Amino acid sequence: MIYELLVPLSKYVASFRAFESVTLRAACAAITAFLICLVVGPGIIERLASLRWRDRSDFDSERLGDIMKGEKKEGTPTMGGMIFLLATVCSGLLFCRLDHRMVVLCLWTTVAFGVLGGIDDRIKLLGLPDPKHPNDPKRKRRGMDAKPKLIGQVAIALVSLGWAWSEMHAVAGWSAIRLPFVGAIEGGLLLFVAFGLLVVVGTNNAVNLTDGLDGLAAGCGTIVTVVLGLVAYCVGRRTLSVELHQLFVPGADEVAVFLAALGGGVVGFLWWNFKPAKVFMGNTGSLALGGALGISAVLMRQEVLLLVAGFAFVWEALSVILQVSSFKLRGGKRVFLCSPYHHHLQFKGWTESRVVMSFWIGTAFLSVLALGLQRVI
Amino acid sequence: MIYELLVPLSKYVASFRAFESVTLRAACAAITAFLICLVVGPGIIERLASLRWRDRSDFDSERLGDIMKGEKKEGTPTMGGMIFLLATVCSGLLFCRLDHRMVVLCLWTTVAFGVLGGIDDRIKLLGLPDPKHPNDPKRKRRGMDAKPKLIGQVAIALVSLGWAWSEMHAVAGWSAIRLPFVGAIEGGLLLFVAFGLLVVVGTNNAVNLTDGLDGLAAGCGTIVTVVLGLVAYCVGRRTLSVELHQLFVPGADEVAVFLAALGGGVVGFLWWNFKPAKVFMGNTGSLALGGALGISAVLMRQEVLLLVAGFAFVWEALSVILQVSSFKLRGGKRVFLCSPYHHHLQFKGWTESRVVMSFWIGTAFLSVLALGLQRVI
Repeated sequence: MIYELLVPLSKYVASFRAFESVTLRAACAAITAFLICLVVGPGIIERLASLRWRDRSDFDSERLGDIMKGEKKEGTPTMGGMIFLLATVCSGLLFCRLDHRMVVLCLWTTVAFGVLGGIDDRIKLLGLPDPKHPNDPKRKRRGMDAKPKLIGQVAIALVSLGWAWSEMHAVAGWSAIRLPFVGAIEGGLLLFVAFGLLVVVGTNNAVNLTDGLDGLAAGCGTIVTVVLGLVAYCVGRRTLSVELHQLFVPGADEVAVFLAALGGGVVGFLWWNFKPAKVFMGNTGSLALGGALGISAVLMRQEVLLLVAGFAFVWEALSVILQVSSFKLRGGKRVFLCSPYHHHLQFKGWTESRVVMSFWIGTAFLSVLALGLQRVI
Repeated sequence: MIYELLVPLSKYVASFRAFESVTLRAACAAITAFLICLVVGPGIIERLASLRWRDRSDFDSERLGDIMKGEKKEGTPTMGGMIFLLATVCSGLLFCRLDHRMVVLCLWTTVAFGVLGGIDDRIKLLGLPDPKHPNDPKRKRRGMDAKPKLIGQVAIALVSLGWAWSEMHAVAGWSAIRLPFVGAIEGGLLLFVAFGLLVVVGTNNAVNLTDGLDGLAAGCGTIVTVVLGLVAYCVGRRTLSVELHQLFVPGADEVAVFLAALGGGVVGFLWWNFKPAKVFMGNTGSLALGGALGISAVLMRQEVLLLVAGFAFVWEALSVILQVSSFKLRGGKRVFLCSPYHHHLQFKGWTESRVVMSFWIGTAFLSVLALGLQRVI
């Protein structure tokens, strides 16, 4: 918004011209989002706590329940994702050029998934009896049922993908899917939507599953956001994108401003979320974060980058899929001691901090690997 | 080295031409350094432990001793900085273009400071009686005396700065010192050396003082290294440096490869150093890291960027200076409960993890602020 407000005034105040720069606005966006989180954090956390929107630690596995009890999480307010959601949206609206539709698309996707996650959280917090176990008063609903939640995710993703296609399909080379070793596949709208759904809804659920330990999803999410932001800046500039052998996506540098706001917001949230967490992001946060990462990767056609850099998320999701299918297909046999994978490591005796740190460092490593691979492939 | 070996062979194997790319070599350098740390880490840690090169937790302040005893650090091997020193040097030699003198200069500075730090560590580890308290057998030497250590630091910095001047002073605009609000000051060799000494020796001691909690110096150092690396890439390319209003420093993009190796190495070291640390970097590591950051900032003339992004280090050093001068000048009055500042926070009841996380997040924030400021000033 600041671009539209101040740059026309640069005839009068020459220094306003500085806001033409994407890098400057990106830095401002990150800083503003970070500061918003620090400022509004305590108020929101207190309000969530006084509303008793607190996490219930009920786990299927008794052993997991015991481990998590040792980490003293009972009663921590949840739905804190609204802190960085608010910060990202305010800072994004302020510093992005809103005449670039890609930015509005990213903001819409983030908010829509955030709202869906909020509904999910709220249903869990209401503490209604579990319809699957109507006679056991101790079992409460854990949130939305799987089916309506998935329908919601697919619906939001469909709107975003359709919008993305209508905005971007005219850009040379954009509509093709680029896969390593396979090359570019030109499949039209249908293939784009199918592949996009996989990426957006997949990222959504993967980040959702990763969110389970203090700072885990927020820390990994920050690193992936920074990497996507850097790449967005590069692929949005013609000379750099050619030099780095990437598809030139006009306007992607404006997505970098959005990602800077997101990154600043998530780091600001991390301030309240690192161990011992004062607040959890809840599904409000994890769906919003996953949706933002997924849609920006699709907009830049950097899905492979997201896959590699965000492999921590992918691996968490895979561990659940492997565990559940092994349990069903191999007659009760498990692959991991517990899934998602971060609980497996806890079962092996790792402390929570150690699991989180290992994931952070692993994600930092994979991010560099992803940047390297993108260059070669 | 790989550049000199493989690129000439690209007439036979066309894909070797990929190693002309700075970004690819930077990614490879970071990944290689990280993996070297993971591979050689356990061996070196075991060897350090079996040599009994372990940290002695003796603090002047009894209360600090009690706090640190609670964190169970007694007996952790030190001098672990050699892990990332080795990784950085091997990976740097492998992936940097060694015909660029700036890279060789960075490598020399890092190693020289690492060796100085190693001597310092070794003297501490020998456990000789403290010459200032010859009658108290409990008081051991804490390392080199302040004077010879400072002389060593200044000597190394002088060699590096002289070398830097002879390589770079012909580059247009390089010899001037750029300060915010003041502008460019052209002061010739003498001013350059004086200012450079302040930056290099200052960074050296600041990182040295910061190294005191698990993952503190390594984590902050990683973030600052990434930022410096990004800027090195930008100022080393004519188009980007012009666009970002930075001084164009030919060859600085090759320093980005060195910084990538350093960053990968320090993250790899962090794998062994996060809480509970299996090894400390010791002065071997902190002097090497500080020297590397200082000299690369000077080579790119991005001293202000280092000052802002690395303000955590600066603040730690300032807290010691303030504390000591207040104690001396105001008759025993203290400014902080304990210095360096991280101990002050511990005295205030913060857990070690909380202090470290706050420093990391603060450094991430300051890094973005530094990038933003550089653009405006």
